[in-house]
Amino acid sequence: MIEAALFGAGRIGKIHAANLVRQPGVHLKYVTDVHAESAQALAQQHGAAVATIEQVLADPAIKAVLIASSTDTHADLIVRAAQAGKAIFCEKPVDLTLARARAAADAVARAGVLCMIGFQRRYDPTFAAVKARIAAGEIGTPEVLTVTSRDPGAPPVSYIKVSGGIFKDMLIHDFDIFRWILDDEAVSVYATGSCLTDPAIADAGDIDSAAVTIRTRSGRLCQINASRRAAYGYDQRFEILGSEGMLQAGNHKPTEVTAYSAHSVSHDKPENFFLERYRAAYADEIAHFFDALIKGTAPRTTVHDGLKALELAEAATTSWREKCVVTL
Amino acid sequence: MIEAALFGAGRIGKIHAANLVRQPGVHLKYVTDVHAESAQALAQQHGAAVATIEQVLADPAIKAVLIASSTDTHADLIVRAAQAGKAIFCEKPVDLTLARARAAADAVARAGVLCMIGFQRRYDPTFAAVKARIAAGEIGTPEVLTVTSRDPGAPPVSYIKVSGGIFKDMLIHDFDIFRWILDDEAVSVYATGSCLTDPAIADAGDIDSAAVTIRTRSGRLCQINASRRAAYGYDQRFEILGSEGMLQAGNHKPTEVTAYSAHSVSHDKPENFFLERYRAAYADEIAHFFDALIKGTAPRTTVHDGLKALELAEAATTSWREKCVVTL
Amino acid sequence: MIEAALFGAGRIGKIHAANLVRQPGVHLKYVTDVHAESAQALAQQHGAAVATIEQVLADPAIKAVLIASSTDTHADLIVRAAQAGKAIFCEKPVDLTLARARAAADAVARAGVLCMIGFQRRYDPTFAAVKARIAAGEIGTPEVLTVTSRDPGAPPVSYIKVSGGIFKDMLIHDFDIFRWILDDEAVSVYATGSCLTDPAIADAGDIDSAAVTIRTRSGRLCQINASRRAAYGYDQRFEILGSEGMLQAGNHKPTEVTAYSAHSVSHDKPENFFLERYRAAYADEIAHFFDALIKGTAPRTTVHDGLKALELAEAATTSWREKCVVTL
Amino acid sequence: MIEAALFGAGRIGKIHAANLVRQPGVHLKYVTDVHAESAQALAQQHGAAVATIEQVLADPAIKAVLIASSTDTHADLIVRAAQAGKAIFCEKPVDLTLARARAAADAVARAGVLCMIGFQRRYDPTFAAVKARIAAGEIGTPEVLTVTSRDPGAPPVSYIKVSGGIFKDMLIHDFDIFRWILDDEAVSVYATGSCLTDPAIADAGDIDSAAVTIRTRSGRLCQINASRRAAYGYDQRFEILGSEGMLQAGNHKPTEVTAYSAHSVSHDKPENFFLERYRAAYADEIAHFFDALIKGTAPRTTVHDGLKALELAEAATTSWREKCVVTL
Repeated sequence: MIEAALFGAGRIGKIHAANLVRQPGVHLKYVTDVHAESAQALAQQHGAAVATIEQVLADPAIKAVLIASSTDTHADLIVRAAQAGKAIFCEKPVDLTLARARAAADAVARAGVLCMIGFQRRYDPTFAAVKARIAAGEIGTPEVLTVTSRDPGAPPVSYIKVSGGIFKDMLIHDFDIFRWILDDEAVSVYATGSCLTDPAIADAGDIDSAAVTIRTRSGRLCQINASRRAAYGYDQRFEILGSEGMLQAGNHKPTEVTAYSAHSVSHDKPENFFLERYRAAYADEIAHFFDALIKGTAPRTTVHDGLKALELAEAATTSWREKCVVTL
Repeated sequence: MIEAALFGAGRIGKIHAANLVRQPGVHLKYVTDVHAESAQALAQQHGAAVATIEQVLADPAIKAVLIASSTDTHADLIVRAAQAGKAIFCEKPVDLTLARARAAADAVARAGVLCMIGFQRRYDPTFAAVKARIAAGEIGTPEVLTVTSRDPGAPPVSYIKVSGGIFKDMLIHDFDIFRWILDDEAVSVYATGSCLTDPAIADAGDIDSAAVTIRTRSGRLCQINASRRAAYGYDQRFEILGSEGMLQAGNHKPTEVTAYSAHSVSHDKPENFFLERYRAAYADEIAHFFDALIKGTAPRTTVHDGLKALELAEAATTSWREKCVVTL
Repeated sequence: MIEAALFGAGRIGKIHAANLVRQPGVHLKYVTDVHAESAQALAQQHGAAVATIEQVLADPAIKAVLIASSTDTHADLIVRAAQAGKAIFCEKPVDLTLARARAAADAVARAGVLCMIGFQRRYDPTFAAVKARIAAGEIGTPEVLTVTSRDPGAPPVSYIKVSGGIFKDMLIHDFDIFRWILDDEAVSVYATGSCLTDPAIADAGDIDSAAVTIRTRSGRLCQINASRRAAYGYDQRFEILGSEGMLQAGNHKPTEVTAYSAHSVSHDKPENFFLERYRAAYADEIAHFFDALIKGTAPRTTVHDGLKALELAEAATTSWREKCVVTL
Repeated sequence: MIEAALFGAGRIGKIHAANLVRQPGVHLKYVTDVHAESAQALAQQHGAAVATIEQVLADPAIKAVLIASSTDTHADLIVRAAQAGKAIFCEKPVDLTLARARAAADAVARAGVLCMIGFQRRYDPTFAAVKARIAAGEIGTPEVLTVTSRDPGAPPVSYIKVSGGIFKDMLIHDFDIFRWILDDEAVSVYATGSCLTDPAIADAGDIDSAAVTIRTRSGRLCQINASRRAAYGYDQRFEILGSEGMLQAGNHKPTEVTAYSAHSVSHDKPENFFLERYRAAYADEIAHFFDALIKGTAPRTTVHDGLKALELAEAATTSWREKCVVTL
């Protein structure tokens, strides 16, 4: 039996807890949270105990920790957990600054522990199927990737102010998709954007609509368009053109009903938001983490991937602010 | 140059005239119609002359006639045109009675002239592609055909009264599709139906909703569902299950726009009605007719096909009226 | 805490057990199976005990039983569980004979216990959404229902021989869908069919391809086409035409990948078979059962529904065998 | 009767001729071409005469000229036709250099003649429907446009060498779509690209894959991705996100057949190339030209639009070559 602990009992922590307790051979021993009641409620639901971070890290029975606390705690918890020899699953992003993120990666490397970053999209059935089919050669050599990434609505401006900006907060996932699907690294990044939905976002120093273009070492191209608001819901698509064809990853829908009216033929909007859209992905990534831990294999999404996505987010932020192309 | 004449300058006559004059090597010499002004207008538009049926049939220069006049004139015109040695294109149905339809077919056989019936659906690009792909073996042996055939709205009750009933007037096309796609003949027909949209149709002795099941010599099955009214427009679909797969013929849409709103994702309704839906089919069938005439080949839709569809319509009518299965 | 027992540890019993243990406030106390090892394995997986039917029924702590054993045991177990005062969830069909099914229904009525039949399709998100949208008036008055019901492949002929035939074994679900979606009862049934996939099925006295037409009291129409084999997988669709529109329930797909090749544009085949296609439905029906039990409400699918579907299956069998229309 | 002349009897000239002769009240009097046989064949097909450019321009009966000759002749012919007082339809681009294009525009302005540029995509039923629905307010304020523009294969390198490069030759259409759909002008352009399909294209100083980002005066964003080669055919799509929804313009297909096999569910690839894809657009633009001529109204696509698209193509070319953002 693998004993595990969860840091953070918020929205995503609850998802991870529910998926963790379904893993055969895994037991949730502790839950921690700065908000005591949240920790208590989640711990009770799954038969776990509330503990402090120190207690968790000091307990030799704990083999794995899941970090789902606020972003500013990620890097520090990674370092401490690595030093304590725990296997680590950490939500994205590793940190909002490259320096701290690199320090966390260094700590992981020194400790030689497993560290997986929660880029859950790589575990989505649709996205993973595209990756597998590219790998099987179905479209020949990948050439051009286009990514559409739109939230149903912007988070509160109070959150946006501490979010690190749209590129680190929202496009970080898309930068990871870029690296994964094109299997290549960026040589140049260009980003531009606007504040089109709410002037308060501009006042907070951020934008809500972004357009990014990345060129890779081998000349492959990637375009990402992102928006904090899509009236029709959560839009998560990409398409990859290769020398012999194209693969598209489309949105998921709640039902397969088609309605014919006097006006149009319609079907469901996409799944509402990430908790619904990536339900299977969240389950699969936790299973993948414990599978990697048990088998001693490398996870699909490492702390290195976290660093590289953050580098792209930094480059995009610079490009947007300075209205120039950034060379990597 | 092939000189041709058109009987009937109504809605479908105008379509045929416009397609006829686009055929290289074909000239529209005469137009006839019981309504003099219609004949005059259509003739003038295409540089043809107005004539009587007698004049047309007596003119040895006329090699082909297109019969697009009212249904009750079809059989008689076929007989007279055949006796005059003209190649014949005739709108469906051949007649509303089997006896008269057979007489027309006999006259054609005796005269040895080309006679093509206007089952335009066989010339529709989508339907024809399904047929060709079945013939190429794509789905193995055909087994089960389901046909959906719905008009956007019922014709005037005055028309329904002289239409021969829903099976001869509307499902005649579907019976032809059945024979063509399954490439087999019926051994039993069961039909039932209801008047669900307008009691005046029941008062006229007809129904507006029909369900037909046909079993073939080799045990293949066909189900047809038809309605005089679909709120969403003209619905013309079928699907054919074979031992190795299935092919569906779907509706055509005016545009390929997809709209994402706060409520749903929608696209266009089907093309409005038969003039739009079968525009290409009407053009292709006229081209096919003159091609068969020039090359001396058999047309895809013969007077025999017209007879067989009418036999099925009669059997379905009997089955519906007598609430029994009709064996053929 | 509601204590429950499961009769039958086979394929569908395992599904029900896994869903049962996820219900808050419900505990799986016993598992029974004629095959001791199966019972033992499933009981152990969920922390339950193996017991005999007698032990289960004699334990006053047991409030609910789930009957997932072989079809020939259903009616008897319903009677005994009803007499013991247990709430009953029973897999379809109630029985293969109307007499025994009616006896079971009578026992339920006399005991006044909850009895829900496992017509899981009514709990499928897509099917349930269609029903809710009809109820909300979206398509006006329902008129014509067409159902496509195809399995990926036939079961072993040894099973077919004891299955009660295609109408009771396979179309029983479609008959229930008919009653539920059209919200009406049949006045006539016509069924025909063929053995097109494997002569051994004909030798066993059954068919593999069926076409059924039902007319209701209010003149609504239903056509069902069913096949034991679809080369492309499990095909579960229906569409309902109403006076103001149409709703289609489509197949579910494993992923939302679209592939563009030099030959075509393609997406996934439907989910493989019922365990995948109705995964959510199986979960929702068990939740619904315990919800009804806790709240004392009537379940969506009663033993009466089981009887009515069986009556239609009997009528269809008669119609097919005697080549006639059966009036109900 | 409007007498018209056609300059250029090549592939696109033939299309225009066929559409021209279908316009009521319009007559094709002359055809010119540097290749005498081509001019002769096309003239004969439509009952026109072969003439020199001088003869055409000197004939006062000629009210309109259609310029479908090679790109390097466009600007000069526009100037001469304008000076001769003819209404002008000219294929895109106006010219490969801005200076010559501006001179042509000036000549048109001085002469006060009608001059329409053949950006046929604006006349495509799908694209035009999107524009009309935006104008009707369906998606609120337009924000982000993404355009996918891919040819089935690259033209010969000999053509690429004189084509003006991918931005002027191919993306010129997409730049026009950008201005039309977003109804705004560019303030910055960034373009990058690669040669991924054939080194000979790089040797000719061009690229085959391009990614362009445009920012407008009001902060709207546009991303265009283009490729000279898509293994699956001609890919012509765009989608426009607005404050209240999104509209997508999808590819057109030859048929509406869907095929279910043991491997996948597939439908037709997009229409093969521009002659098929824009068949209706080519017809509609010629009808629009003569309609504007007869009514004295402004055409949808003016020489000013031709200039603006060319400016964007120049800016994109500069951005690509100099690896920088170009401000307009």
